[in-house]
Amino acid sequence: MAGSTEVPYLLRAARGEELERPPVWMMRQAGRYMKVYRDLRDKYPSFRERSENPDIAIEISLQPWKAFRPDGVILFSDILTPLPGIGIDFDIVESKGPIINQPIRTQEQIDQLHLLDLDKFGFIRKILKALRDEVGNDAAVLGFVGAPWTLGAYAIEGKSSKNYSIIKGMAFSQPAMLHQFLGKLADAIAIYVRYQINSGAQVIQMFDSWAGELSPQDYETFALPYQQRVVQQVKATHPDTPFILYISGSAGVLERMGQSGVDMVSVDWTVDMAEARARLGHNMKVQGNIDPGVLFGSHAFIRDRIVDTIRKAGNKGHILNLGHGVLPGTPEDNVRFFFETAKQADQLMAVHA
Amino acid sequence: MAGSTEVPYLLRAARGEELERPPVWMMRQAGRYMKVYRDLRDKYPSFRERSENPDIAIEISLQPWKAFRPDGVILFSDILTPLPGIGIDFDIVESKGPIINQPIRTQEQIDQLHLLDLDKFGFIRKILKALRDEVGNDAAVLGFVGAPWTLGAYAIEGKSSKNYSIIKGMAFSQPAMLHQFLGKLADAIAIYVRYQINSGAQVIQMFDSWAGELSPQDYETFALPYQQRVVQQVKATHPDTPFILYISGSAGVLERMGQSGVDMVSVDWTVDMAEARARLGHNMKVQGNIDPGVLFGSHAFIRDRIVDTIRKAGNKGHILNLGHGVLPGTPEDNVRFFFETAKQADQLMAVHA
Repeated sequence: MAGSTEVPYLLRAARGEELERPPVWMMRQAGRYMKVYRDLRDKYPSFRERSENPDIAIEISLQPWKAFRPDGVILFSDILTPLPGIGIDFDIVESKGPIINQPIRTQEQIDQLHLLDLDKFGFIRKILKALRDEVGNDAAVLGFVGAPWTLGAYAIEGKSSKNYSIIKGMAFSQPAMLHQFLGKLADAIAIYVRYQINSGAQVIQMFDSWAGELSPQDYETFALPYQQRVVQQVKATHPDTPFILYISGSAGVLERMGQSGVDMVSVDWTVDMAEARARLGHNMKVQGNIDPGVLFGSHAFIRDRIVDTIRKAGNKGHILNLGHGVLPGTPEDNVRFFFETAKQADQLMAVHA
Repeated sequence: MAGSTEVPYLLRAARGEELERPPVWMMRQAGRYMKVYRDLRDKYPSFRERSENPDIAIEISLQPWKAFRPDGVILFSDILTPLPGIGIDFDIVESKGPIINQPIRTQEQIDQLHLLDLDKFGFIRKILKALRDEVGNDAAVLGFVGAPWTLGAYAIEGKSSKNYSIIKGMAFSQPAMLHQFLGKLADAIAIYVRYQINSGAQVIQMFDSWAGELSPQDYETFALPYQQRVVQQVKATHPDTPFILYISGSAGVLERMGQSGVDMVSVDWTVDMAEARARLGHNMKVQGNIDPGVLFGSHAFIRDRIVDTIRKAGNKGHILNLGHGVLPGTPEDNVRFFFETAKQADQLMAVHA
């Protein structure tokens, strides 16, 4: 039976086993589209409290688990969460996103950063342990981490940016300083990932959300080497924990993502899954890649797109997911239908064969 | 001498002639990064007035021409400009973008749209004629138009959207209605393009700005056929006017852009230009594709990136441009340096050979 074995089903896909249906979860599956989440947000309006108070973060992480039984349950967190651990404080303002009070702009600020102080992250251990206890082998627990370029972009821009003109200005006129900063971030992130694994994370989902803003040659200079540095450091001590890398707007650098050392590339929806497979080669596993906008369509349309995506991805080394986080405003009933249909995909594929 | 012949130099690239250096202009070259533009904006705060009052629009279109002598001068306009001509009114709110007061959501609204009323667009004729008179053969005059999917997205969403969930909801549950709307838009746009050509436009730059939000299969259903419909209708009467198609975030659909019937694909910066050439084939001409963020870098960096892009694009069928519009905040001196360097690229390439 798909879904109940000695290891979580999702891990079998991450190992490349041939499977009757792909495991399924959704990026941002705990979030604003759920009424239970919005209610909890009204009660605890601070994002940092919601993600750093273990009781609340556990409850939020488990909301989609309780509602839809996905094959993966991801730590509810933010990519910026580790930054205070090296000396960069931040806040998250509702509907505006993260604010860094003192954006990193000078060599002096970079010199003052310290190694990651793990004492600050006891809540991460508590959350991950609780998630493992709750889901057992019925789902895999995923860790959650940002990659150096993206954390650097936030820290330097000081907030969500449209154009990344400040970090790019630095990259294109003071590259040595930026490289130093990215190196420090990579080392901190590697420590943070190891801590997540030691605390129970069975898979690591790494987001380099803003790396898609780079031209391919700049990606090779400022993003890829630091993704590699994180992966290499973690793999040195934890070789068996799968890494998944997601970048939004990655169609121009897809092959290069495959060079990062990760086990699986999370493909966004702007690339055809069959073309992604061809470009990445058969040794690379894939996650994705249904347009989150599909969940605003009819049930028949959602079902067809699930079948189409699974057919294009093939029957091994694929985790079914959206090509981006589920959108605010998505009808919860469509999310329910998506999971239900995906978990019966073995029967569906047989019918459509 | 490059730059002064019987036909504008840019047209020679559009025809595929072998050239010593590519012609150069910048998307959004008239705009907020220029102090003269900001001063004029303070005087005329309404975008619609700036783009529809011919005296002001002529002055704005010519601001970069006077400052930098690009090889192309584009009509200062907005992609939504033709919408009132079929019965969809809009306003543009500074820093918020366009607002459609009555977004298109029903079959009844679509039934009520009428054929494009050209009487409303005398200002377009005046602007284009004045630009031709002013620049003569020293630059080509480009027309400016949005493609059906993108105009449809604005008209349906009612404003700039992050997720396009309303038009996608329509596409994925009521496709017949959306197809009807897109068809009407295509027919109106074709009439509008012909009018621009008859008024003096020598090249048509078509923006399908939001088509990059579509998965490749949805692009083939909802964007590509309507780009083709516009191009076919215009080519039937004006076969010699080159069409350039730009989409932001097009790395996943680049080959498909080549099927639109346009003469040249404007490549965004997230694709390597050499890879774009390989993917598009040698019969397709290209425009682009320097990251606008490069203009926040050092002069040496800007120069290297110009050389690199020209080398990758080759010496025919290439117009040098950014991979997106020039960004607000870009130092004007760097724009000046970019144009100066690009116009001496023949010497620069010889030195670097």
